Amino acid sequence: MKVDKEFKTKVAINLLNQDPLLNQAYKEVKQAICKSVWPEGATTFTINNSEKKSNGVVPIKELCYIHLEEFLKWFREKPLKVLAEEKGKGGPIDVYKEFSSANGLIVKRVGLEFETGNISSAHRSLNKLKLGLDRKEIDLAIILLPVHELGKYLTDRISTYEELAPYFELTEGMAFIVIGFNADAFDNTVEIIKKGKDGMSDRSIKTWKDFH
Amino acid sequence: MKVDKEFKTKVAINLLNQDPLLNQAYKEVKQAICKSVWPEGATTFTINNSEKKSNGVVPIKELCYIHLEEFLKWFREKPLKVLAEEKGKGGPIDVYKEFSSANGLIVKRVGLEFETGNISSAHRSLNKLKLGLDRKEIDLAIILLPVHELGKYLTDRISTYEELAPYFELTEGMAFIVIGFNADAFDNTVEIIKKGKDGMSDRSIKTWKDFH
Repeated sequence: MKVDKEFKTKVAINLLNQDPLLNQAYKEVKQAICKSVWPEGATTFTINNSEKKSNGVVPIKELCYIHLEEFLKWFREKPLKVLAEEKGKGGPIDVYKEFSSANGLIVKRVGLEFETGNISSAHRSLNKLKLGLDRKEIDLAIILLPVHELGKYLTDRISTYEELAPYFELTEGMAFIVIGFNADAFDNTVEIIKKGKDGMSDRSIKTWKDFH
Repeated sequence: MKVDKEFKTKVAINLLNQDPLLNQAYKEVKQAICKSVWPEGATTFTINNSEKKSNGVVPIKELCYIHLEEFLKWFREKPLKVLAEEKGKGGPIDVYKEFSSANGLIVKRVGLEFETGNISSAHRSLNKLKLGLDRKEIDLAIILLPVHELGKYLTDRISTYEELAPYFELTEGMAFIVIGFNADAFDNTVEIIKKGKDGMSDRSIKTWKDFH
């Protein structure tokens, strides 16, 4: 997979230039999405483009998550205090990691949402991350989602970078990044990605609460 | 129907106190939602509470819209320039009206979304209105949605005031109001509201573009 389009607020651009921990976080997320390959065992990601809306998205997300969790030590399902404790409503952030300086004195917290729902679901992800930033529970927010060129071959109604793009400006003034990923290649003979979790191996996800 | 819960940003509270046009807009929206009655011909709104998720929501919205359009001269489907022209993506605002001072020199524009989708759809409505405010295409934004006490008897997964409430703070600093409406009475013998548009008379909605 490759990173095709990116949006960064001015605040995020400055932080990436000045803060090595947040820069590391950003690099890890890009590295992880690029680890998603297809077909299994390939070194790049090739999507079957013979028919629109035909490929599942779960295995794409799963390969990225495995890399984030197993190799880069991110955690899944990090509750925001503002939602879980204060308001008593609303689910956790998809993926989360705390980056510490060598002396342990500085900690930067990064929240990531890998958006595979419809466009309105992407708005919820955006607002959840904004709430986390406003309440200073995270220092950087990142949304991952496919660009239209790839998204049109994925599960019906999956939200794309371009669909959410009109609303990116709502994140100005905050440390916010949106990454649009795309297939490395398009080929109408490669295996179609099954929808849902069919054929995927069970694994235990590394949730935040299991380790903290 | 009655207004049961309300959220107003500090900006909105100040505007309602100081600006007679925006205060008029706010009163009209509250008046319109309170015009929703059930069963047909009643003077109040009584919901059948014999079973959760059993009542449709379209007729509730329709009665409110008819009052807004026919009696109070609001328009439907007002495109935001930022979405329709600049970004070329994204639908219009549900309901819209321009309030003019007697001498015609002052115009205040109000956008309203009557939210009957799921919670993520409510996030999209919120963000669309925020974009309209940010771009100064509207002067006041209002979201209408049921409170949980009523919502639990309506179409499955309809978003409620309480579900969106954790995110209200994202609108601070803007002229934003959220109104949670509730039934006047609960009765397990009153007629169940049919789902979808069944049994509703066709009518031409007053869209913005038809009149401007």
